Amino acid sequence: MSTPKRICIIGSGNWGSVIAKIVGNNVKDNGNFVTEVKMYVYEEMINGRKLTEILNTDHENVKYLPGHKIPENVIAIADPKEAAKDADILVWVLPHQFVRGICKALAGSVKKDCIAISLIKGLDISEKGLDLISNVIREQLGIECSVLMGANIAPEVANENYCEATIGCKNREMGLLLKSMVQTPYFRIVVIDDEHTVELCGALKNIVAVGAGFVDGLGYGDNTKAAVIRLGLMEMVKFAETFYPGSKMDTFLESCGVADLVTTCYSGRNRRIAEQVVKTGKDIKTLEKELLNGQSLQGPPTAAEVNTMLCQKNMEEKYPLFTAVHKICKGELKPIAFIDCLKNHPEHLDDDMPSPAQL
Amino acid sequence: MSTPKRICIIGSGNWGSVIAKIVGNNVKDNGNFVTEVKMYVYEEMINGRKLTEILNTDHENVKYLPGHKIPENVIAIADPKEAAKDADILVWVLPHQFVRGICKALAGSVKKDCIAISLIKGLDISEKGLDLISNVIREQLGIECSVLMGANIAPEVANENYCEATIGCKNREMGLLLKSMVQTPYFRIVVIDDEHTVELCGALKNIVAVGAGFVDGLGYGDNTKAAVIRLGLMEMVKFAETFYPGSKMDTFLESCGVADLVTTCYSGRNRRIAEQVVKTGKDIKTLEKELLNGQSLQGPPTAAEVNTMLCQKNMEEKYPLFTAVHKICKGELKPIAFIDCLKNHPEHLDDDMPSPAQL
Repeated sequence: MSTPKRICIIGSGNWGSVIAKIVGNNVKDNGNFVTEVKMYVYEEMINGRKLTEILNTDHENVKYLPGHKIPENVIAIADPKEAAKDADILVWVLPHQFVRGICKALAGSVKKDCIAISLIKGLDISEKGLDLISNVIREQLGIECSVLMGANIAPEVANENYCEATIGCKNREMGLLLKSMVQTPYFRIVVIDDEHTVELCGALKNIVAVGAGFVDGLGYGDNTKAAVIRLGLMEMVKFAETFYPGSKMDTFLESCGVADLVTTCYSGRNRRIAEQVVKTGKDIKTLEKELLNGQSLQGPPTAAEVNTMLCQKNMEEKYPLFTAVHKICKGELKPIAFIDCLKNHPEHLDDDMPSPAQL
Repeated sequence: MSTPKRICIIGSGNWGSVIAKIVGNNVKDNGNFVTEVKMYVYEEMINGRKLTEILNTDHENVKYLPGHKIPENVIAIADPKEAAKDADILVWVLPHQFVRGICKALAGSVKKDCIAISLIKGLDISEKGLDLISNVIREQLGIECSVLMGANIAPEVANENYCEATIGCKNREMGLLLKSMVQTPYFRIVVIDDEHTVELCGALKNIVAVGAGFVDGLGYGDNTKAAVIRLGLMEMVKFAETFYPGSKMDTFLESCGVADLVTTCYSGRNRRIAEQVVKTGKDIKTLEKELLNGQSLQGPPTAAEVNTMLCQKNMEEKYPLFTAVHKICKGELKPIAFIDCLKNHPEHLDDDMPSPAQL
């Protein structure tokens, strides 16, 4: 029997706090893990008290997950290096713009055989171009990095409503260890090896959700939204096949694929803000400030990053939905142009369509 | 150039009337078809006038599609044999329980090289067992039969909101001819050859939608519904692969597959009535009478037919979602049992899960 693994959760926002609740409870009767779980918390003052102190005393994240107890064996620590120093497993769950900074802080100090799992939905953009967040973690820390993605709107998971998620992990045994860390009767996990595609789905779905919001704002119904979801899914498939060869079609039928896409297109904040762009005529930045209480959307920046890459490769036309979402977000196209994009989508063209004279 | 084809639409309900509007307009400037389109209409008296007379005079189906003009080149005929006698293309769009009766009426009188396309979502059950509706048409009339399925809630298509559909047709040239009969700028068609799977999707999705309604009624959120949609889709895939070998995975990513499933699980009547079963405690028959104005649901009978077949083959346990939906519809299980079915779904089991001692 191998030594029980020490876990460190990096991040303490809404989703991070939900995961801390699940992991903290799960390790209690699981010989695979040390019972104490550390959590790196970005320190903030809340009504004159430090957030770490509130977490370690009251066991509740009053700012990001009020109303839910986090198990007492989860210990909040404001210094990432201190939190991660003994960890065998790093659970990454914070906004993607902070990943490189935290990696820098941890570089050289994490255990050599430490492994990571990323729950971060987004892509990294640097002077080298577009990349997966997990690749940044792999390269910066020199460790393995799996991913967990799925149809997991955080407040619903916190309420223990039944849902599923997908772990993408090349090493089957490691994947099953990670599964035993997070699976509960209400949070059901499937482990697959196609980790790049799992992660791509988590990032690209937010672009599609912005499109779903546009058609909601324009007053189109459920048929149109289903078409946006499907055509968006086809562009996700094409993107994965083109840029990550070896990507498997089955992965898109996992929770990280079609299920997360559906949930995000019906009830995520990318959809909601995009609907308001159409209804109010305001721009995204303004609506983020007015409606998101400091949170920012992932869809529009992901659309911009993907668009930069598609332009460089002269492939914009092959992804008309992704492209139209980006151009509408930038104010270069009116939202109604999204419907024209759907009408002319290459999915419906038949290269072999005979002319009437041939029939 | 071949002779223009004569079209007969068999059926004049809500969806049939929408298709009559589309086809009637489409044939006007399309050399592939004769401009006059016949439509078999089940005769009814509406405020003292025959429905056929209303259709041929006022060009509106005041009972099933009020508020929409049907083109004047669509001619309503109350005798199916008379309507179909010269037809080169029969468009089947009526409740599936009437298919065998109409086939009997037409047998021996349709043109030998006539082809059919079925828009009927359901399955046929006879003493021979479960079968596709298209197979009934094929066998009874001795003609080819393609299918058209998709995310097509009829009132939204009538309003010309953008949507997609899938034609399943083994013969590519014939498929493209059928596409040119129905495609419009707002109704976009993809033709594929996997016709059995296209048709199966249209029938099986209604079982899943009943499950989606149960979780809505139980007050679960969008994560849970996404899981129902995904697990339902996995059972649809398994059913197709098991009973219709040669079925292609890609077909489930067409409009007939994931898109129609999503639309049906968010806004169809199967979902709505199932939600009310949970909320009111009434049974399905009672709710159909109270809420559906004479229409009946396809989900519960399809679940029953599929269950009969699964029991015969001792395969009930491999389709826990389909099975639970059926048993709840029959009153053999309480709706809350549906959640237990989700928690124990075999999709989340790992045969190779190591015990803690092995790690």
